[in-house]
Amino acid sequence: MKVRRSNRLVDMTRYLLEHPRSLVSLKFFGERYESAKSSISEDLGIVKHTFNEWGQGRLETIPGASGGAVLTPFYSQENAAKAIDNLVEKVNDDSRLLPGGYVYLSDLIGQPDILRQVGKLIATQYVDKDVDVIMTVETKGIPIAQSVAMYMNKPFVIVRNSSHITEGPTVSVNYVSGSVQRIKKMELSRRTLSAGANVLVVDDFMKGGGTITGMKSLIKEFDAHLVGVTVLAEGHPVNSQRLVNDCTSLIKVETDDGAEKKIVAQPGTFMENVFDKETENK
Amino acid sequence: MKVRRSNRLVDMTRYLLEHPRSLVSLKFFGERYESAKSSISEDLGIVKHTFNEWGQGRLETIPGASGGAVLTPFYSQENAAKAIDNLVEKVNDDSRLLPGGYVYLSDLIGQPDILRQVGKLIATQYVDKDVDVIMTVETKGIPIAQSVAMYMNKPFVIVRNSSHITEGPTVSVNYVSGSVQRIKKMELSRRTLSAGANVLVVDDFMKGGGTITGMKSLIKEFDAHLVGVTVLAEGHPVNSQRLVNDCTSLIKVETDDGAEKKIVAQPGTFMENVFDKETENK
Repeated sequence: MKVRRSNRLVDMTRYLLEHPRSLVSLKFFGERYESAKSSISEDLGIVKHTFNEWGQGRLETIPGASGGAVLTPFYSQENAAKAIDNLVEKVNDDSRLLPGGYVYLSDLIGQPDILRQVGKLIATQYVDKDVDVIMTVETKGIPIAQSVAMYMNKPFVIVRNSSHITEGPTVSVNYVSGSVQRIKKMELSRRTLSAGANVLVVDDFMKGGGTITGMKSLIKEFDAHLVGVTVLAEGHPVNSQRLVNDCTSLIKVETDDGAEKKIVAQPGTFMENVFDKETENK
Repeated sequence: MKVRRSNRLVDMTRYLLEHPRSLVSLKFFGERYESAKSSISEDLGIVKHTFNEWGQGRLETIPGASGGAVLTPFYSQENAAKAIDNLVEKVNDDSRLLPGGYVYLSDLIGQPDILRQVGKLIATQYVDKDVDVIMTVETKGIPIAQSVAMYMNKPFVIVRNSSHITEGPTVSVNYVSGSVQRIKKMELSRRTLSAGANVLVVDDFMKGGGTITGMKSLIKEFDAHLVGVTVLAEGHPVNSQRLVNDCTSLIKVETDDGAEKKIVAQPGTFMENVFDKETENK
């Protein structure tokens, strides 16, 4: 029973979105819809055109007998700017201020629409990079890592603060927590990361950069490669001391915990790091 | 510039999938594609038919001036059974056995394709239930909660094991950890849960059910309602003592940590709890 083009387009879009950055063969779609490869090719042309037109990603088609299509979701510059502005607006709320100049973000990193935007933004930054695995540290980095992983279709690993029986053998490193200048320990299960893997580090918030530095040491211990570091929000480091300089932030947050109790959120380094570079290269 | 039907169908499918369980108005689509509402209605009919045909969810259309469409992704019985079988196969691997009869699952809950399946399965179970928020406990429950949240388009909240400065005021409860019979403490940020909210509890693994019982107490402390409890995997409780009986599991895992070092995974109570009930009601 041949499936009609209009139905093919709907199911194909759903299927490709659930298998991003994966090669789906013409043969697979041909059998699924009992349609000729030439019809499937035309369908893919329509999908490609539509994603491009709406700035939602690109579809690459690989010709030949073993050919197929790969959908890579990302934001156009215009859509990325809108998503960043939306984040800034959500965080610009004085009631988010907590004692000590910390910022309450737990609600945002539990909201599906925010997570989709954050995931797609970070996936946009590394769209042409070879990433094998996304790394974060528990607890609040996890939703960020998972969102990125869903769009990049790569696994994520969780670095933990203390030993847990259900992790099996682990590798641990010590690091200096920037904000309190205390030595802490973080560890990662041996099985989760291979030597030579290309690792993208993400987290929810960076102040001094201590945990990021810790994750970098862990990556070295595993003989893996660091591809980049991106955080949802970047705060003002205590004593203006920062251990990490190569980190991209979606937003920047300045807090005044004094008499005024103010939060000022603004765009981070994302737009300039991602889109200015792109223009440069062209 | 009017958008053609074939392009509308692709973009509409993507848009609806990124806004599941949300009412998207005919007006919105009409303006987005500069097309008549009658054309948009026909498009939605095609989307509806396709999702139904492939067992991937339902599209409800709400008529009238303020009408629109709501896409609810879920699995047909056939697709759900396939997803469960896939999970069973992945876990049936003796190298997952850890000392003490624990099971290594960290790799699975970091894999996008597994998480999509787990999320869609649990969303299928509660497709006709009123759920306001999904609750889990750190750390490994988080990816499960987030996956469900993405398909249900509802926020998730993370219960934590100890106090963290960036949470603001919290409510805490004590609970007995079933496996070690020790009193522990868990807590949730005051701001994350409202009185009267309908809460779905999910977790990665249940043995004795102590943490699930703890989350139930927390829900009571917040004057919220428990809608249901579903876990990825259910293990054999130590001393056959179980504190929770109303929990659905996607898979069951039996371990033999003795001389044999064996793991036997099999389908949990999901299929009978979700699809047998449905047949009963009809």
